[in-house]
Amino acid sequence: MRIAVVAPSSQFGSEAAARVEAIAAARFPGLEIVFHPQCFLAHNHFAGSDAARAGALVEVANDPAFDALWFARGGYGACRIAEEAIGRLGPAARDKAYLGYSDAGYLLAGLYRAGFPNLAHGPMPQDAMRSGGEAAVARALSWLAERSPDALEPGLEPGRPHAAFNITVFSLLLGTPLEPDLAGHVLLLEDVAEHMYRTDRAMFHISSNPAARRLAGIRLGRCSEVPDNDPDFGESEEEVVRFWCARAGIPFLGRAAIGHDSDNRVVPFGVP
Amino acid sequence: MRIAVVAPSSQFGSEAAARVEAIAAARFPGLEIVFHPQCFLAHNHFAGSDAARAGALVEVANDPAFDALWFARGGYGACRIAEEAIGRLGPAARDKAYLGYSDAGYLLAGLYRAGFPNLAHGPMPQDAMRSGGEAAVARALSWLAERSPDALEPGLEPGRPHAAFNITVFSLLLGTPLEPDLAGHVLLLEDVAEHMYRTDRAMFHISSNPAARRLAGIRLGRCSEVPDNDPDFGESEEEVVRFWCARAGIPFLGRAAIGHDSDNRVVPFGVP
Repeated sequence: MRIAVVAPSSQFGSEAAARVEAIAAARFPGLEIVFHPQCFLAHNHFAGSDAARAGALVEVANDPAFDALWFARGGYGACRIAEEAIGRLGPAARDKAYLGYSDAGYLLAGLYRAGFPNLAHGPMPQDAMRSGGEAAVARALSWLAERSPDALEPGLEPGRPHAAFNITVFSLLLGTPLEPDLAGHVLLLEDVAEHMYRTDRAMFHISSNPAARRLAGIRLGRCSEVPDNDPDFGESEEEVVRFWCARAGIPFLGRAAIGHDSDNRVVPFGVP
Repeated sequence: MRIAVVAPSSQFGSEAAARVEAIAAARFPGLEIVFHPQCFLAHNHFAGSDAARAGALVEVANDPAFDALWFARGGYGACRIAEEAIGRLGPAARDKAYLGYSDAGYLLAGLYRAGFPNLAHGPMPQDAMRSGGEAAVARALSWLAERSPDALEPGLEPGRPHAAFNITVFSLLLGTPLEPDLAGHVLLLEDVAEHMYRTDRAMFHISSNPAARRLAGIRLGRCSEVPDNDPDFGESEEEVVRFWCARAGIPFLGRAAIGHDSDNRVVPFGVP
């Protein structure tokens, strides 16, 4: 099994790559992980220019020698290339698995809309740099290599389609050519480093969009590293999400084991 | 002429109110400005609970004794009450002028969608606290009291409809029941205190929405207090907006004299 890594968003580093290679060698000796040289480019905020990031993604996605495409990290930048890159993908790209989260959600969204069958929200190579990150990387590899059930978010319901996104990312793809049809889906949401008033505002936006009102429900993952609100917002992320779900008539289905942390579990898109 | 002030978003203070009253007394002696007691309430992030903010807005908007409704300040919170409050407005509300910007854009958007004829993006009472804020307040009052042409953004084109919004606010009302039809409009945009990557992402969202692609064009106001991007974003706000306009086929029509500052000029919604 061969996994290609590309970085459609922010800059990625060789130390994370080395850690991932060490984890893979120790735990999944049959696995070959190929970091595309684009991962290590730097252009302003991004891992290379828009053309370089889109080019690398299209190249490995269309290469039948790879079984999976793993997004190196989030940050910012995938929305600048997703629509154009997805438009250049051929049949070999459709057979692959794609794994990532956070800013990579723009790509997962567009690929899901385009009918790609093997997409998942879950840990990325950059998570190797976290405390406890080895477990996150191993979890991702166990899903990529073996579709291990142990890697999965434990609350996924058999027979029901799911999707998972960062709250801010999902909000900022609504109405665009990347927005997937999530009618009947359980949507798992998480966020990081957003003031609570921003999360409240994004949930207004999400829950007020007609598409979101066709969801089967929302489950809330972790919102971590929330900066202090001035003045105090007075509500937790769960109170915020419950508030907007109630107002929009979207069932709130409880918490979820996803987030910007080492315990981030894998959520395959569609019916598990 | 009687102007009512309510605070649909963040907390407002008595010092700003006193400054506004002094400016009005000195420059517009015929004008009566009534600060609704709700302006001075505090509930978490907001100038009172959602019910208190919506109630005050509906009360003064529906009161024929007032000629205009002036939003006290931005911050955050108008999106939580706008749809419900606008639904409770009667005929006396429709005759009034409404003035504000920033977070008040949620209300201007919903009111414009509802066909209210006298809406404008421009300075608010809180601007009295800025350096040079007296000029901003006097400009707002000269528009409210006299529709002074000197108050207007100088680039408004006769015969063409206009609207003006904060970039983040406009992005986060797309697809909601507050989104107005801006087909054929020149849209003036500004922002404050957003990292450049956030402005880039919001412009992706705005320019990728089909509604925005029906605009006559976009003019860019000021983006102020931009926090340092890490790493440096490498593009200015004008480069960012030009990039997304070009990609979406939206004419970029130059800069605009609006922003979170004392030089913020008035932009009436619709044909000037």
